[in-house]
Amino acid sequence: MFKKQNPEVGARPGTLAIPPDSPPPRITVVQYDAAGVERRQIEDPRELAGLLEPERVTWVDVQGLGDEAVLRAIAAAFALHPLALEDAVNVPQRAKSELYAQHQLIIARTPLVQDDGLLTTPQVCFILGERYLLTFQERYFGFFDAVRGRLQAGLGPMRRLGPDYLAYALVDAMIDRYYPVAQSLSDQLEELEDVVVEHPHPEVLARIHLLRRKLVVLRRVGWPQREAISAMLRESSPFFADDHKLYLRDTHDHIAQIMELIDSAREMASDLAEAYLSNVSHRTNEIMKVLTLMASIFIPLTFVAGIYGMNFENMPELGSRAGYYIVLVVMVTIAVVMVVFFRRRGWIGNPPPPRLGADREDREG
Amino acid sequence: MFKKQNPEVGARPGTLAIPPDSPPPRITVVQYDAAGVERRQIEDPRELAGLLEPERVTWVDVQGLGDEAVLRAIAAAFALHPLALEDAVNVPQRAKSELYAQHQLIIARTPLVQDDGLLTTPQVCFILGERYLLTFQERYFGFFDAVRGRLQAGLGPMRRLGPDYLAYALVDAMIDRYYPVAQSLSDQLEELEDVVVEHPHPEVLARIHLLRRKLVVLRRVGWPQREAISAMLRESSPFFADDHKLYLRDTHDHIAQIMELIDSAREMASDLAEAYLSNVSHRTNEIMKVLTLMASIFIPLTFVAGIYGMNFENMPELGSRAGYYIVLVVMVTIAVVMVVFFRRRGWIGNPPPPRLGADREDREG
Amino acid sequence: MFKKQNPEVGARPGTLAIPPDSPPPRITVVQYDAAGVERRQIEDPRELAGLLEPERVTWVDVQGLGDEAVLRAIAAAFALHPLALEDAVNVPQRAKSELYAQHQLIIARTPLVQDDGLLTTPQVCFILGERYLLTFQERYFGFFDAVRGRLQAGLGPMRRLGPDYLAYALVDAMIDRYYPVAQSLSDQLEELEDVVVEHPHPEVLARIHLLRRKLVVLRRVGWPQREAISAMLRESSPFFADDHKLYLRDTHDHIAQIMELIDSAREMASDLAEAYLSNVSHRTNEIMKVLTLMASIFIPLTFVAGIYGMNFENMPELGSRAGYYIVLVVMVTIAVVMVVFFRRRGWIGNPPPPRLGADREDREG
Amino acid sequence: MFKKQNPEVGARPGTLAIPPDSPPPRITVVQYDAAGVERRQIEDPRELAGLLEPERVTWVDVQGLGDEAVLRAIAAAFALHPLALEDAVNVPQRAKSELYAQHQLIIARTPLVQDDGLLTTPQVCFILGERYLLTFQERYFGFFDAVRGRLQAGLGPMRRLGPDYLAYALVDAMIDRYYPVAQSLSDQLEELEDVVVEHPHPEVLARIHLLRRKLVVLRRVGWPQREAISAMLRESSPFFADDHKLYLRDTHDHIAQIMELIDSAREMASDLAEAYLSNVSHRTNEIMKVLTLMASIFIPLTFVAGIYGMNFENMPELGSRAGYYIVLVVMVTIAVVMVVFFRRRGWIGNPPPPRLGADREDREG
Amino acid sequence: MFKKQNPEVGARPGTLAIPPDSPPPRITVVQYDAAGVERRQIEDPRELAGLLEPERVTWVDVQGLGDEAVLRAIAAAFALHPLALEDAVNVPQRAKSELYAQHQLIIARTPLVQDDGLLTTPQVCFILGERYLLTFQERYFGFFDAVRGRLQAGLGPMRRLGPDYLAYALVDAMIDRYYPVAQSLSDQLEELEDVVVEHPHPEVLARIHLLRRKLVVLRRVGWPQREAISAMLRESSPFFADDHKLYLRDTHDHIAQIMELIDSAREMASDLAEAYLSNVSHRTNEIMKVLTLMASIFIPLTFVAGIYGMNFENMPELGSRAGYYIVLVVMVTIAVVMVVFFRRRGWIGNPPPPRLGADREDREG
Repeated sequence: MFKKQNPEVGARPGTLAIPPDSPPPRITVVQYDAAGVERRQIEDPRELAGLLEPERVTWVDVQGLGDEAVLRAIAAAFALHPLALEDAVNVPQRAKSELYAQHQLIIARTPLVQDDGLLTTPQVCFILGERYLLTFQERYFGFFDAVRGRLQAGLGPMRRLGPDYLAYALVDAMIDRYYPVAQSLSDQLEELEDVVVEHPHPEVLARIHLLRRKLVVLRRVGWPQREAISAMLRESSPFFADDHKLYLRDTHDHIAQIMELIDSAREMASDLAEAYLSNVSHRTNEIMKVLTLMASIFIPLTFVAGIYGMNFENMPELGSRAGYYIVLVVMVTIAVVMVVFFRRRGWIGNPPPPRLGADREDREG
Repeated sequence: MFKKQNPEVGARPGTLAIPPDSPPPRITVVQYDAAGVERRQIEDPRELAGLLEPERVTWVDVQGLGDEAVLRAIAAAFALHPLALEDAVNVPQRAKSELYAQHQLIIARTPLVQDDGLLTTPQVCFILGERYLLTFQERYFGFFDAVRGRLQAGLGPMRRLGPDYLAYALVDAMIDRYYPVAQSLSDQLEELEDVVVEHPHPEVLARIHLLRRKLVVLRRVGWPQREAISAMLRESSPFFADDHKLYLRDTHDHIAQIMELIDSAREMASDLAEAYLSNVSHRTNEIMKVLTLMASIFIPLTFVAGIYGMNFENMPELGSRAGYYIVLVVMVTIAVVMVVFFRRRGWIGNPPPPRLGADREDREG
Repeated sequence: MFKKQNPEVGARPGTLAIPPDSPPPRITVVQYDAAGVERRQIEDPRELAGLLEPERVTWVDVQGLGDEAVLRAIAAAFALHPLALEDAVNVPQRAKSELYAQHQLIIARTPLVQDDGLLTTPQVCFILGERYLLTFQERYFGFFDAVRGRLQAGLGPMRRLGPDYLAYALVDAMIDRYYPVAQSLSDQLEELEDVVVEHPHPEVLARIHLLRRKLVVLRRVGWPQREAISAMLRESSPFFADDHKLYLRDTHDHIAQIMELIDSAREMASDLAEAYLSNVSHRTNEIMKVLTLMASIFIPLTFVAGIYGMNFENMPELGSRAGYYIVLVVMVTIAVVMVVFFRRRGWIGNPPPPRLGADREDREG
Repeated sequence: MFKKQNPEVGARPGTLAIPPDSPPPRITVVQYDAAGVERRQIEDPRELAGLLEPERVTWVDVQGLGDEAVLRAIAAAFALHPLALEDAVNVPQRAKSELYAQHQLIIARTPLVQDDGLLTTPQVCFILGERYLLTFQERYFGFFDAVRGRLQAGLGPMRRLGPDYLAYALVDAMIDRYYPVAQSLSDQLEELEDVVVEHPHPEVLARIHLLRRKLVVLRRVGWPQREAISAMLRESSPFFADDHKLYLRDTHDHIAQIMELIDSAREMASDLAEAYLSNVSHRTNEIMKVLTLMASIFIPLTFVAGIYGMNFENMPELGSRAGYYIVLVVMVTIAVVMVVFFRRRGWIGNPPPPRLGADREDREG
Repeated sequence: MFKKQNPEVGARPGTLAIPPDSPPPRITVVQYDAAGVERRQIEDPRELAGLLEPERVTWVDVQGLGDEAVLRAIAAAFALHPLALEDAVNVPQRAKSELYAQHQLIIARTPLVQDDGLLTTPQVCFILGERYLLTFQERYFGFFDAVRGRLQAGLGPMRRLGPDYLAYALVDAMIDRYYPVAQSLSDQLEELEDVVVEHPHPEVLARIHLLRRKLVVLRRVGWPQREAISAMLRESSPFFADDHKLYLRDTHDHIAQIMELIDSAREMASDLAEAYLSNVSHRTNEIMKVLTLMASIFIPLTFVAGIYGMNFENMPELGSRAGYYIVLVVMVTIAVVMVVFFRRRGWIGNPPPPRLGADREDREG
């Protein structure tokens, strides 16, 4: 099973509903320009005020939401809109992109399979300003390690470009995480194909349904994601350079491909469920055939035996010397007729599966 | 079951179709500005005329629609368009937002589970003017208590902002009520999962259908709600400040999330119904196997016994000393052959459910 | 069953395909202004020429289409476009609204249950000019009686407003007629719910399908209606005052609500069909259980009896004094073992339906 | 079955893929104005050059595509765009309307039931110029006979209007041909309703599927047709007068109505298939009941008889004078108990179909 | 089965994920104008710089992606955008068309049935510049041989037109490849129709599902293709002449037709699966009938025989001379009654399939 990530919708505007088991915030500041990268932990959020530099990009990564005072201090330092702070804290939100006067808010969600096999979809909130990027995560996730490494190593154009490119790279890293999960679900479905034929146990159907439900969760989370990125591509934002939208277009292609993969997997799940039900029918059918065969052959024979088991005094056949043998011959005849009848109907013998012809696409060069 | 909240569509323009069991109106007037809140009951609707003040927001809450004269007096006091009054009174309406020259009309509906378990979806009609807000409710509902409390307590920016913010807060409070109902339906479906496997009784399917129908009701009520809020976001209204639309965008996200939850729950309901049917098939199958087994083993044996129960005078085997024992051995042999045949076909013994492999998403880090 | 109202599409432009059983036209002229209403029958269509007055609204209601000459005379008197006359006469048309240079054409269709239970959907064609309204009906329907009464009585603003308001009122009256039919179908489906459980006879499924087909007919007729009204709301027409569109918006809400009701009813029909099939399966299952039980208990017992019915001379048990009683004990033991086995599997006894927990939405306040 | 009319898509731009069995072109030229109509066959396509007259409309109808040289000569005479010629020759194309600089190309397809019952959907290509209309047909179809007759007879406004009106009239004639085919399929489905109940043979399901497939073919051909006409209504073409679009709007209504009829018929096909399967289940159920009844009554009785058929020496009952009669009474009692049990369960006797209440729509006036 | 062509989405921007088994690039340069065609292999990608000529079109075809250095050199020579190079190399991508400042990128995918029957959908990436076209293929495919031949032979207008026409011709060649594959799948489904009736083995259903899955793959690949071409038609590109869009419109029609064929085939697959399940039911039904018939006739008879096999001393019938014959008559009577009962119910004898009436579309001329 997977943990339900349903929204606590009831949060009132202006109230922060801190997730109950969220650890206290750990604030990491990364500042960089083409020349180099500087990185440090910050304990007191008041240090954030006056941190911004016009020449360098500032990335403040907040991991853990467990202290309202700290969060409010961060919001004050960056003059966040109250609704933006709420969206960052009151998880889960739908993936979306919203423009405010001072900044752009982006919510992205990514699948995470927990140690106990549960499928969760944690969110990250991005606040993208002119020269800074804030990211809020509910827990200490490792989603951004790879990007942080590339930033440190100076690979690619990341250090030369603004915080919007950084935001793109992080969102892209999150969306890349959909693929292996979707692929794994699709692979598991494919493996069930043989099991469905050979062991059509209700357990198998339950497994198909479980996989389908995980696909539904992925789809439910992924569609708003796709829409959000598509909206970012369309709308003109003062915070996201048009030149960098080429990259975002790429991310959009990825999530679109993943959604198509998920939809195909869902169709496969439906086919499997149908195949399962058909196999159960087929098995019932086979059992019926055996039952009918046994009953149809032996019931008449038993009846014949029953007749000559009657105790009438006057039954001439009983006295005849050949009577017994004649009856045996009659019985064998009846049995043979029955078997021939069933064989004609194709109920005896497992006929080889119908010849379906060679797989003939090859005729197309 | 749940009460049908179908429209009495037949109302003629200009006619008020007072709901027959609606209590007489109770009129509460709340006037506030940043400085304070004043609240009082009003008995005579004529007091409403001249009540509006340019500096303070006036909120007139009408609970109960059971007196046409009073309603018409209220409409006159605020110069309501006749169609707006009708929409307020002739419940139920679809959720919607309509602009009139003098005011904006908003219909919102929210799920309400009655004491007897019925699911109803009462409506509230909002008439939003320049400096006032009118709300019409069919009965004495408690939907607005929390907002009224926040207003009284002066929490948040509500007292500083106009009647449109108040309208937003009230609509938002109504939409927040969808979530626990949808979640409860979803939870109940989830609990049915085990029951479907262990007690596939038609009662269970009926329960699944009942839950699905409640989901359909929620969806039918919720979709126009979503559209209405989306329309309010798009259209430019003289009564709803653009700045406050940021908040409305939040409400739109909530209802969108709830609709997604409902859709997932409906898919789960379909899966459950399929699982139910599959389990019934499986059970039939199991029963068939036992029947076939018993019949196939004992019918031939009984036939053999029948043969030697015949009364032919000339049946040499009967006189043989070992005849009885030989027949017993033959019978045991037949039985063993049958059992082996059935075991090979996998019809005897409950094989352990197929190994489906460990839940393998964990391979994805 | 219901009469098929399929179009005779083949009509050539310029040809009038008079419905074969349509009675001769009965022409009623109503002229009104705020001051009063004048109403008279007209025999000779040539009287219509010169009838229009700039100050008064003229409503010409044509009931029956059975005389081409008369129809052409009417068309000439009002300078109707040839295609408009065709649409009026060549029933049935889809509901629609079309602008011509001289007038606007509106087709509306409404459900009508005939005396023999057939569901038909007759059409009315409205031709809306600057100062006049023409209505063409196939037969003498009573759809407009209520509106005519209100006009006569001077209720509401109708006499003060133009022919477009009259057209709105008449269309609205036709759309109001959908609701009771849809509601009745929905109610009938609801009543079938118990029948499906208690008497799953194919007749019930046929009834469900019949109701669903009627719903499909309503939907097929209602959707273009909705679109037509929605088009009238959007497009700017010289014949339909923008001020009166507020009223039309109301009509649009009604038809939208009705369509939602129909869609819910269709979902209910599908659920019912599924429940029906599930109940048939359940019954088969119950029957199977009894059969298996009887067969499994008595077939082995009969076999045992058969053994001691054999006529071997040397069967020591037969001579034993206690043999008979021992065999009886063995038989009882076999029977008891079988019953215990079946009881364990839950195949004996009708277990109470599974406890599904109290209906728990009530936990939500 | 019906012939597959699938496209030979592989045609290269610039290549004409003459349909292999297409007869040689027969070219008919019709020239007309309000004054009169002149019609003649043309043998040599070079005669076409210089044929156009500014005052008269020229309609060149080419029946048969079996001679590439002739086709290219026609194309040269009218300066056709190479792609337009291809679309005319390389059948089948989707229905469409395409604007070129020199002319407008319209492809229309219409259903044709061949003598052997196959459903084909031949196409006609219209090339509409300023003062001329070209039509290309694969074979000698009679689709245009009626229009040609009206043109000859001077009925309607056709001779006064341009080639666009002629094109409209011809397309309309082709679309009128959809209706009887769709209606016939719908009628055949309706007739199957009783057969499904009384003879649920797989043949019937195959028939339903065959009809559904024909409906799918009609739909696949009709949808692009609808879209094409809808596009012609929207786009402004120098070749199609806006005034004549009123007529086209009519054609659009026809095809829309037909599509709705087809969709209803497809829903009916699905219902029928469901009813078929349900009837098969019902029949199985009935058979099961009889089997269970017979087995359950007689198997215990046979067992009792078997007991007293045992040959134990010491069976006191056998010696009792009344023993035989007591056993007979016991047997009758068992049988009666069984019958009562089955009757209670409702398995004996064909209960009258459940009372479904009178068809109650009549309660709605 | 078919190879999964799922995306390795994880590629980071700026990284090239060379497909592991891709052979080293083989670079073919074709330069042509109306006068002639020059073609040569290039070993060193640095030769490409300075290759472009203003008067001639340059087509560089890169087959094989197995050497990153070479690919980067090509990209440098044509100043490709880094993202464009990635899209070319990191297969598979969705079909798409993207505008960059320097060039247009088009991704097309086409179905390819491998020798082992697997269905793959390799991609080709087109980079279309002002005077050049680059094509990147993963392997040595022969998709372009026909176009290359036409180019060489100077057929059609290709040599006179720019690189956009060449790109069109190549994309068109790729899309032409969909048709035979889709048609083959459709044909195979059609052939399964009889098999489904005569050999309803689960293998057949598995085959139907396999074909459906191939159709799903085609559809998943084809839809973005259709969208991409539709986008190219809409958007105005400096690289694709508007005049040549007429040709592209043709390609769009082809892919649209193919998608319709695929959708029809998918509906047929669903019908087949339903027919399969119905046939299995029908067979079970037939088997049940035989079983019930045999059991119902012989079980009562056996019971009668059992009665007179009892050993009661006082059974008067046994002493009667005619007793035996009377019992035989009784038995025959019972059997006859049973047979008549079953015949009445239609359970004996294979009634001829119901008369479904002649295929009656022919009544429509």
